Amino acid sequence: MKAAFLAIGDEIVGGLTTDTNSGFIAGELRAVGVEPVGGFSVTDDEDGIARTLERALEDADLVVCTGGLGPTADDLTTAVVARVAGRGLVLDEASLAHIEARFRMRGFDMPPNNRKQALFPDGATIIPNPNGTAPGFVVRVDRSGHERWVACFPGVPRETRAMVRDWLVPWVAARQPDRRFLSRTYSTFGLTESRLDELLAGVVAADEARLAFRAAFPRIQARLTVAGAPGDDLEGRLDALEARVRERLGHHLFAVGDEGMEETVGRLLRERGLTLAVAESCTGGRIGDWVTNVAGSSAYFLLGVATYSNEAKEKVIGVRAETLAAHGAVSTQTAEEMAQGVRRLAGADVGLSTTGIAGPGGGTPEKPVGTVCVGLAWEGGVWSRRYDLGDRGRDWIKGTTAQVALDRVRRWLLGAMD
Amino acid sequence: MKAAFLAIGDEIVGGLTTDTNSGFIAGELRAVGVEPVGGFSVTDDEDGIARTLERALEDADLVVCTGGLGPTADDLTTAVVARVAGRGLVLDEASLAHIEARFRMRGFDMPPNNRKQALFPDGATIIPNPNGTAPGFVVRVDRSGHERWVACFPGVPRETRAMVRDWLVPWVAARQPDRRFLSRTYSTFGLTESRLDELLAGVVAADEARLAFRAAFPRIQARLTVAGAPGDDLEGRLDALEARVRERLGHHLFAVGDEGMEETVGRLLRERGLTLAVAESCTGGRIGDWVTNVAGSSAYFLLGVATYSNEAKEKVIGVRAETLAAHGAVSTQTAEEMAQGVRRLAGADVGLSTTGIAGPGGGTPEKPVGTVCVGLAWEGGVWSRRYDLGDRGRDWIKGTTAQVALDRVRRWLLGAMD
Repeated sequence: MKAAFLAIGDEIVGGLTTDTNSGFIAGELRAVGVEPVGGFSVTDDEDGIARTLERALEDADLVVCTGGLGPTADDLTTAVVARVAGRGLVLDEASLAHIEARFRMRGFDMPPNNRKQALFPDGATIIPNPNGTAPGFVVRVDRSGHERWVACFPGVPRETRAMVRDWLVPWVAARQPDRRFLSRTYSTFGLTESRLDELLAGVVAADEARLAFRAAFPRIQARLTVAGAPGDDLEGRLDALEARVRERLGHHLFAVGDEGMEETVGRLLRERGLTLAVAESCTGGRIGDWVTNVAGSSAYFLLGVATYSNEAKEKVIGVRAETLAAHGAVSTQTAEEMAQGVRRLAGADVGLSTTGIAGPGGGTPEKPVGTVCVGLAWEGGVWSRRYDLGDRGRDWIKGTTAQVALDRVRRWLLGAMD
Repeated sequence: MKAAFLAIGDEIVGGLTTDTNSGFIAGELRAVGVEPVGGFSVTDDEDGIARTLERALEDADLVVCTGGLGPTADDLTTAVVARVAGRGLVLDEASLAHIEARFRMRGFDMPPNNRKQALFPDGATIIPNPNGTAPGFVVRVDRSGHERWVACFPGVPRETRAMVRDWLVPWVAARQPDRRFLSRTYSTFGLTESRLDELLAGVVAADEARLAFRAAFPRIQARLTVAGAPGDDLEGRLDALEARVRERLGHHLFAVGDEGMEETVGRLLRERGLTLAVAESCTGGRIGDWVTNVAGSSAYFLLGVATYSNEAKEKVIGVRAETLAAHGAVSTQTAEEMAQGVRRLAGADVGLSTTGIAGPGGGTPEKPVGTVCVGLAWEGGVWSRRYDLGDRGRDWIKGTTAQVALDRVRRWLLGAMD
């Protein structure tokens, strides 16, 4: 099955909003054997939408539209799809009740305009939207004797993602009754995309599985998808392939699925009943921010300090003036004392620290911009290392340092330090 | 002039990369009077690119392509554009020398494949790329007796943004020799997009300026563009309109141009020679992270603490146990003591604090998820406020709280507290 994507709205074409829906949907559909062939965006113009939809129907068996399902006059998607499909519009009472209920829940009466969101092309299948007012729909629109489908979703990514995962993907899979698909995602850290590509080269044969990469800085993900007939042991095949992938990736693999590094570290701390405190210099609070993005992190995150000045390093977490004088703020010695100091101050099991030169100023020939040190302290032990990350911008240096530091906590917890 | 956008590459269509180039270019071109009419994305397929380019040329006078200018076999843009334009390919010696020089600069010989990047359709105007190897080009491709143009840029956003700003925008402006354009951007905080729209309704007449909005969470921007003939006083006209905009926006306007809130706060602190310390509970380090994203922030940012536990609040920054017991960790009283405590600990001029319930757990009927308190302390004074932000997710609550808190520092510095 070939799919094309159509994002509808002045704000998309004019650059006020970036269309992230089309790419997300393309990725989800690829995992069930769909081939994405192209994308379109069009302004809120009736004839423009109709012309673009016809073009998309020339290229693809399934056209997925996003946007233009709202209640206002410039929301034209449903009307244009009905026109292109040669069908009338009909009111769906159940959808109307759902929309009215959502307004009541927030203490309002439904404005009359929203009634429009319960109209669908005659014969369409309605796609429920648990997170918003506008339901989606899918309708058959044959062209040149071929079966074609148009599926429409709201422009709000959160609503559309859930509808695609829960409804469209199973619908597409069900249209290929003799095929089954199963995917797993592997998140890695410390590899470039091309190095990951090299590491996994030949790990699966083309007829065993589809292997795709996705760079979602700072992690790089690989996704394995296996396909087969009903009754095939896809889990078993994926398990066997995964064993090979795990062997190749070693400690670079930090999670299976979409778990982020901060979630992995949080899960491991929680499993072991350990607590964490962090002293940040060049990362300025980013590690604390990431760690506390995880719901329930208060169970293991006791304290973060961003000791940006030398005075704060001495006074708040007890880095010795002699250490700072002899080795400088950006040194493995200072990193170790920061990790030990914040661990002691917080009464935590593990202390983590960063200190470095994020630039653009502050570099020297011995310690150029991108020089960072990471420290780790625990009961009876301490570890530190200097990294030369290079100057790829302040934000990149901060983010990479934060990720390297959290990865070190993970590896320490797993006994995989080098 | 009407423009369409064409993003080329399997990774765009397949959802491995999001196309941010098309929207950026559309926004820049709108400011010089261009009307964006639609967008396309297509895989690395020769016939597919040609067909899509023809479709785009049906709709627009200018088609802006991005991607597919690299050295590998699947980089097809230049060859396809030459084919569609009915022109041969010619080698540009100056571009070849530029590409060779970029490799030498990094200590490599140019691989033979990269020679391809110095080939252009015969008669094309070459667009220099100061940040990468692949130059761009623009070539005339007339259709149905109308003058049409195709402009091609690399897929790397950093390279393309500079080339668009420095070359394409002036080129488009020069093609309208009797028109001049001038734009300014106004960044606001504390308003929804629709409230901003209402506030600015009628502030400029349609023939005075073009007004566009852009929601770039957490700030909402308005952009004014004036157009006129050569010799018109566009600066003067924009100044007069800006005075009206400023009056309407009041303290919601925090910056003219692209300056972020953390940069505005940093600039104001620096101008006044004041220093800042931050105690974060629910934001977990995000304020420190943002503040230290600004180069040179070490001049005014002394210390951040993420006192996630009550124990840390007491022990590290001296919040009194009685305050925590009587009012709870999420209270204006605790926020005030946190701000005072971190200010004292750091010896800073201004102390800022946040404490709140970021969810998903931890809410109560009196203090539901999204309840946050912000505190501010200075020599001889203290301020705090409770906000009920509502439950729009942990990340949203953290980000909004961080922005509200920094905005309060800005307003305090400007004497615009309410």
